[in-house]
Amino acid sequence: MASILPASKRAMIPDKNAYNGKRFVNVKNPYLDTMDEDVLYHLDLGTKTHNLPAMFGDVKFVCVGGSPNRMKAFALFMHKELGLAGSGEDIKDICAGTDRYCMFKTGPVLSISHGMGIPSISIMLHELIKLLHHARCCDVTIIRMGTSGGIGIAPGSIVITDTAVDSFFKPQFEQVILDNIVTRSTELDKELAEELFNCSKEIPNFPTLIGHTMCTYDFYEGQGRLDGALCSFSREKKLDYLKRAYKAGVRNIEMESTVFAAMCGLCGLKAAVVCVTLLDRLHSDQINLSHDVLVEYQQRPQLLISNFIKKQLGLHDQMT
Amino acid sequence: MASILPASKRAMIPDKNAYNGKRFVNVKNPYLDTMDEDVLYHLDLGTKTHNLPAMFGDVKFVCVGGSPNRMKAFALFMHKELGLAGSGEDIKDICAGTDRYCMFKTGPVLSISHGMGIPSISIMLHELIKLLHHARCCDVTIIRMGTSGGIGIAPGSIVITDTAVDSFFKPQFEQVILDNIVTRSTELDKELAEELFNCSKEIPNFPTLIGHTMCTYDFYEGQGRLDGALCSFSREKKLDYLKRAYKAGVRNIEMESTVFAAMCGLCGLKAAVVCVTLLDRLHSDQINLSHDVLVEYQQRPQLLISNFIKKQLGLHDQMT
Repeated sequence: MASILPASKRAMIPDKNAYNGKRFVNVKNPYLDTMDEDVLYHLDLGTKTHNLPAMFGDVKFVCVGGSPNRMKAFALFMHKELGLAGSGEDIKDICAGTDRYCMFKTGPVLSISHGMGIPSISIMLHELIKLLHHARCCDVTIIRMGTSGGIGIAPGSIVITDTAVDSFFKPQFEQVILDNIVTRSTELDKELAEELFNCSKEIPNFPTLIGHTMCTYDFYEGQGRLDGALCSFSREKKLDYLKRAYKAGVRNIEMESTVFAAMCGLCGLKAAVVCVTLLDRLHSDQINLSHDVLVEYQQRPQLLISNFIKKQLGLHDQMT
Repeated sequence: MASILPASKRAMIPDKNAYNGKRFVNVKNPYLDTMDEDVLYHLDLGTKTHNLPAMFGDVKFVCVGGSPNRMKAFALFMHKELGLAGSGEDIKDICAGTDRYCMFKTGPVLSISHGMGIPSISIMLHELIKLLHHARCCDVTIIRMGTSGGIGIAPGSIVITDTAVDSFFKPQFEQVILDNIVTRSTELDKELAEELFNCSKEIPNFPTLIGHTMCTYDFYEGQGRLDGALCSFSREKKLDYLKRAYKAGVRNIEMESTVFAAMCGLCGLKAAVVCVTLLDRLHSDQINLSHDVLVEYQQRPQLLISNFIKKQLGLHDQMT
């Protein structure tokens, strides 16, 4: 599966050596190159069963998100936006042999689902980063697009994360390695965040801001929800917590950004997190949007990221 | 969707009052009953949009597992094993409106996928427990069936968990609530584990044991794998860690059991964890089984749990 960008478009893509220098993906594992075969188990791919450089060598943008349906929708959208041949409707799930994750490729854009929560995205990222390494990809930008709960901002707003913070508002991710805890940085690429923010200004009626994103291990008790099967705190304690988060610079809450920032940072991937907020947690716990509004909100990160990618590829004339 | 067990089978199910006493599901949230509507967002169900008692009131067994395909396969298998009408091939995903989880119902057996990792299963459990509460279910047994890495036991072995332990071999789950850490017990129902173990003895060539299950937040660094994108420890350190786990009574490693044990315990659900091991982590990190062997191993927990359920329902004559 070589580049499927038509020749007319391919000319518009800057040469990979010229485009932002030649930055390879760093796996930080001395054992990897000694392995005879690397099976990327949860992606149903492997170095002996697949020609990874041929399949993925031209990837420049990796977009990840929790929901398989949404990542397929994004791939179809990118297919159209990049002006690729065919309707794209027959786009194949590259990981069809497993139901853990879905993966779609449209030209230089890879679209992958990661499920919900830190452990689920972490498995995918380990195998994705090895995939990009085996495929000898360079100058890769990776963007997580997601849904989130906002704090003190209108539902439908886009938050571009500058720094991911944990439940204690600390800009760090605690990784358990064997039985040791190692603390990793969760800073994201500031320049990339600014570029995305600038892109957002060109879209009418598109409320966007840059802020901290809080990443929790739990959707209910961990995010101060009063509507879980378990709830041991008062409404006042909940609001006090969310207001303290706001004061610390947190504008939205989701469940994957800290490990995403930490792993991409360590492996030399330029990374961003772009989430839409579905509710303001200062006002409610449950999402009460109509189906149509929910669908439109969920498309917002896709629209912004698609515009950014087209700009990077020199397809300015085709901005949505 | 009332009971779909044919009348001839229904008579074999002990009366719910007689069967093990009348044990309701305990939600521990004083706010829940004050809510006008409860939207189980990630299951695409709700108290106003669905008649939950009619749909789920007869549920006695809930089986959960990571993979949607496997949970569908289990539902089809149970359909056949319970002798329900029709081929079952047209079985519907009750959560078809969302791609977060899948849910299937065959008679008194609910089969649900939970994705990978503690946060993913935790969201599902909050909403499942509320569902069982809203549906006024009683005397519910819940069993997680999964795949795992074994320690010092042959691949293909079944481990029935007595106690789930964390990465530090402690029988506890640390739940972050707002910005406090609360420690919860991870003991499982000893009697249920024994009953499952006794069932296993009736199946020929079915290596089964009761032991501790270690639950980690990470598949690679957290489980001492040398084949991730990141690896900062030596082979010796890895083996030392796994051997210490073995000494502490750990026989397998997976990624959901601590929060499963903690939440089910708090909410009064009789709970068990039944996992097959796909490799011996003292010998390797990657799963190198042939497709057929992998499929057969993955069916083992299903076979054991199906036999257990049939026994409970008085369908002894139909043991597989």
